[in-house]
Amino acid sequence: MSIITITTDFGSKNEFVSVMKGVILGISPAVQLVDVTHAIAPQNILDGAFAVWRATPFFPAHTVHLFVVDPGVGTSRRPIAARIGSQYFVGPDNGLLTPIIESAEQAGSEMEFIHLENAKYFLPVISRTFHGRDIFSPVAAHIANGVALAELGTRISDPVRLALPKPIKTETGWTAHITVVDVFGNLTLDLPSSALQNQTSILFRLSGAEISGVVDSYGQRSPGDLVAVVDSEGFIEIAEVNGSAAKRLNVNVGDMVEVILSV
Amino acid sequence: MSIITITTDFGSKNEFVSVMKGVILGISPAVQLVDVTHAIAPQNILDGAFAVWRATPFFPAHTVHLFVVDPGVGTSRRPIAARIGSQYFVGPDNGLLTPIIESAEQAGSEMEFIHLENAKYFLPVISRTFHGRDIFSPVAAHIANGVALAELGTRISDPVRLALPKPIKTETGWTAHITVVDVFGNLTLDLPSSALQNQTSILFRLSGAEISGVVDSYGQRSPGDLVAVVDSEGFIEIAEVNGSAAKRLNVNVGDMVEVILSV
Amino acid sequence: MSIITITTDFGSKNEFVSVMKGVILGISPAVQLVDVTHAIAPQNILDGAFAVWRATPFFPAHTVHLFVVDPGVGTSRRPIAARIGSQYFVGPDNGLLTPIIESAEQAGSEMEFIHLENAKYFLPVISRTFHGRDIFSPVAAHIANGVALAELGTRISDPVRLALPKPIKTETGWTAHITVVDVFGNLTLDLPSSALQNQTSILFRLSGAEISGVVDSYGQRSPGDLVAVVDSEGFIEIAEVNGSAAKRLNVNVGDMVEVILSV
Repeated sequence: MSIITITTDFGSKNEFVSVMKGVILGISPAVQLVDVTHAIAPQNILDGAFAVWRATPFFPAHTVHLFVVDPGVGTSRRPIAARIGSQYFVGPDNGLLTPIIESAEQAGSEMEFIHLENAKYFLPVISRTFHGRDIFSPVAAHIANGVALAELGTRISDPVRLALPKPIKTETGWTAHITVVDVFGNLTLDLPSSALQNQTSILFRLSGAEISGVVDSYGQRSPGDLVAVVDSEGFIEIAEVNGSAAKRLNVNVGDMVEVILSV
Repeated sequence: MSIITITTDFGSKNEFVSVMKGVILGISPAVQLVDVTHAIAPQNILDGAFAVWRATPFFPAHTVHLFVVDPGVGTSRRPIAARIGSQYFVGPDNGLLTPIIESAEQAGSEMEFIHLENAKYFLPVISRTFHGRDIFSPVAAHIANGVALAELGTRISDPVRLALPKPIKTETGWTAHITVVDVFGNLTLDLPSSALQNQTSILFRLSGAEISGVVDSYGQRSPGDLVAVVDSEGFIEIAEVNGSAAKRLNVNVGDMVEVILSV
Repeated sequence: MSIITITTDFGSKNEFVSVMKGVILGISPAVQLVDVTHAIAPQNILDGAFAVWRATPFFPAHTVHLFVVDPGVGTSRRPIAARIGSQYFVGPDNGLLTPIIESAEQAGSEMEFIHLENAKYFLPVISRTFHGRDIFSPVAAHIANGVALAELGTRISDPVRLALPKPIKTETGWTAHITVVDVFGNLTLDLPSSALQNQTSILFRLSGAEISGVVDSYGQRSPGDLVAVVDSEGFIEIAEVNGSAAKRLNVNVGDMVEVILSV
């Protein structure tokens, strides 16, 4: 039984996502459909890139990840499919896969990219505004059914890549960035915990607040305390115990965090 | 493997929709469940009617569409099931199916309507406030299992029908209406693009703004421009490139748009 | 085909729930996944307790209910699994199961609780902040696959239990509480309709408003009227016909309602 995940910026108010699922199930009736999120900030490719990148490692081999954050729909931007390691990806060629490509490069995984050109695997009529329905959903369903990537179009080697924000080394430590604000108001940084190894003193400064050290779990401090922990992906996370750090500090994705280290 | 779609005004905060799914899976364990939307404006039958009508064509034959927008629950309004063309529908008889019935009449599709009376296919106890759980979910599951409509109750020929808003022909063109505001703030009109054929000049007026002509895709104008395009269903859509036309123009579903034509 | 339901306070903005589903489907590929809700108030165990308790009875035997409202993640709070009657439960030992345990005690159902200790059924690496992914999802998937509870850890007899709010008998009737505010603004009380049997006169007082008697359905009063009805679970519900009682009365979960009875 194959899996297709779906990530969009369509929200959950309209019927759009269900229409994509109807198209998929018409082609691949027994597939397992999983919504990653439909709350990507409208047309924000970077937001979508981090969401898909964070979700992907926990899905089994051969999962097909369908992503539709597509400000360029109807223009000449290419529709693509990819195999990266053991998983498949389908969507517009707009750089959303950049973090996954970078991780695969670091891991030495195989990658293959296809410009989707074989209209046999599209819906019969292609609209100008909803390629998620007309191209990406049917292609994802055909891949789940076992159609080979080479059947779908021409191999390409130049998928669009974004310049991702990265933590910057400073004289006293790092300038990091907030990459995710979750529903609890916890703040994920782009700084992996490995960047802090062998430090005896660590100070985080953001929005006028200072947080000293990294604790093992929220429970080691009192409700209302600001803490730094290692999140479930190995990145530094700033949180308020039983509260919202995002509300308290009035910060958002992209904001900078100064990290002061002494060895 | 059968498909049941679910459309409600229940929102996603409470457990109501999951309860319907539990009832369905108890009867039809292998069914594919697809949420169309649970964000129909509370008790707004017309909003639900457009959502189900827009989603339906993209689902395969034999899909069962379950809809629960039910301000009349507990009164004498009839519970119904229908076959319209190759698809099935289950819900309260309140007019929500009107756009689908009108499309089927235009296409010459067969239709069959049943007043649900056979309590053998309901839950054992029927509450006064949640027929979505007690009547419509089990009936939808039994239809997915292959139970014939004639088993479920008495055939009727007078399902409730709504008076749908329609574009009005004027001396200079059309008075159209906004029927959908999507998550991007794009505005779908009730005017099909076929109503504009052979026109050399087209002007849209709404909320003090004027938009000239219909473009092929958002990408043909600059970010911030207001444009008219043909949407993925063949209707005229007003959008702001990389922005929200709904926010900028402060308009909503039901608002009028003047369309001025010259041949 | 097994069913796993998922209840969390993760919201629908981030990819967290999809990650849990990826883990589950990697272990139990054919399972039916049902979202109960992901809008539990953050870290509000009582809110989660009522949602799971209200959803559970409508699922078939052998359903596995996975719940992750987990303010104590990373502390010494125990991860548990339970069989209560014919259904299974997996999550943190924080009292969320209390209403289900109380109902099972009243019904005389069998119960079994396990402290999850067998790491063979967890993910290989356990984070400090996301046991929903690392412990509870894989365990739920293994239970769905038929792994016996006794395989998963040590039997315990002292799951954490909460003190649940209950209606209080007064000289003139009851002091009840609002336990649920639904998307329509309807207010569910903790008072079962059985507490009002054989009464000739019933008056509800909340937030300065008075409602007299219990009607059979919303349709028996006019739009805008406040009414009391028996909800689909057998509890008293205060509603505004075609409106929102919650908005009109400015009340919320936990607020008191005076119930004045005369025999």
